Amino acid sequence: MTAPRKSDFPLIDVRQHLETGPIVLVTSAWKGESNIMTMGWHMMMQFDPALFGCYIWSGNHSYELIRNSQECVINVPTLELADQVVAVGNSTGSDVDKFGEFGLTATAATRVAAPLIAECYASFECHLYDSKLIGDYGLFIWEVVKAHVDRSVEQPRTLHYRGGGQFMVAGETLDFRQQFRPQNL
Amino acid sequence: MTAPRKSDFPLIDVRQHLETGPIVLVTSAWKGESNIMTMGWHMMMQFDPALFGCYIWSGNHSYELIRNSQECVINVPTLELADQVVAVGNSTGSDVDKFGEFGLTATAATRVAAPLIAECYASFECHLYDSKLIGDYGLFIWEVVKAHVDRSVEQPRTLHYRGGGQFMVAGETLDFRQQFRPQNL
Repeated sequence: MTAPRKSDFPLIDVRQHLETGPIVLVTSAWKGESNIMTMGWHMMMQFDPALFGCYIWSGNHSYELIRNSQECVINVPTLELADQVVAVGNSTGSDVDKFGEFGLTATAATRVAAPLIAECYASFECHLYDSKLIGDYGLFIWEVVKAHVDRSVEQPRTLHYRGGGQFMVAGETLDFRQQFRPQNL
Repeated sequence: MTAPRKSDFPLIDVRQHLETGPIVLVTSAWKGESNIMTMGWHMMMQFDPALFGCYIWSGNHSYELIRNSQECVINVPTLELADQVVAVGNSTGSDVDKFGEFGLTATAATRVAAPLIAECYASFECHLYDSKLIGDYGLFIWEVVKAHVDRSVEQPRTLHYRGGGQFMVAGETLDFRQQFRPQNL
């Protein structure tokens, strides 16, 4: 595949790429080690600052990297990356270097040590904003501090996990703008 | 449209219908009043008990009904209901009876006072599980206590909000079961 050409994207519009509920690839780095995990339990929480919550299981190899660094990058894969998404989710960073093993390219972020995944059309650099729900719920509350999106990808064929090894692939986009109140747009 | 025929559904499998990130219709009831709101900021948080988190803005008419009753029903609409979803999201329960106005049918739930929406193929009755994040983040943590799903709807054409009046419609489902480790299914 041709790598997406990402550029700076407004933080206030991050919801356009995460609210639909795609499976994401979370990258992390700590003391020279980096890793990738799949993640599907997440939500937007605020527009400005752009807050994003997600559940991370303490059994994941990425958990300690993320807890210690208090940073991550949320990368959004599309259909062309489905095999890599499945492979990342069914292996552990304690055994393999997922970047090398699955042909994913780490590129430098600007605000965090964790890398962007070049093959993903959207990547969001995050700082930990609130840790107080990590203990009870594994809930990390992130502030998105830098967003990178390839704007030529107008209808991203994102993957949405249905459980049992099945993914729904994003279909067409319908425009209901004319039926919205202006203040709701 | 023909109303879906919902039946009891295992709580452990609720994620199959919510993890994909659909827009949902939240119903509530308090002191004889009921209402419907659209909601897109939500996530699964735990399998057993089935926990589900969502953001509800305090300015919504439903907010007080939900806070006071500590209950709600999460209903999942599909493409046939797109006009109603948009209408519900662009009106307020302080002005109109959304059930009557938009042709949605309230049916009795079993564990909560809030009604199910008959036209939605899946409905999840919820009790408030943890209120401590409502103040800081508008985050309600719910336990799903009863699930109703029409299992004949195998690939629900759910709606996923992209902002700006645009919805992505769920496309096809791909099966990667063979590439999963058994313990990850």
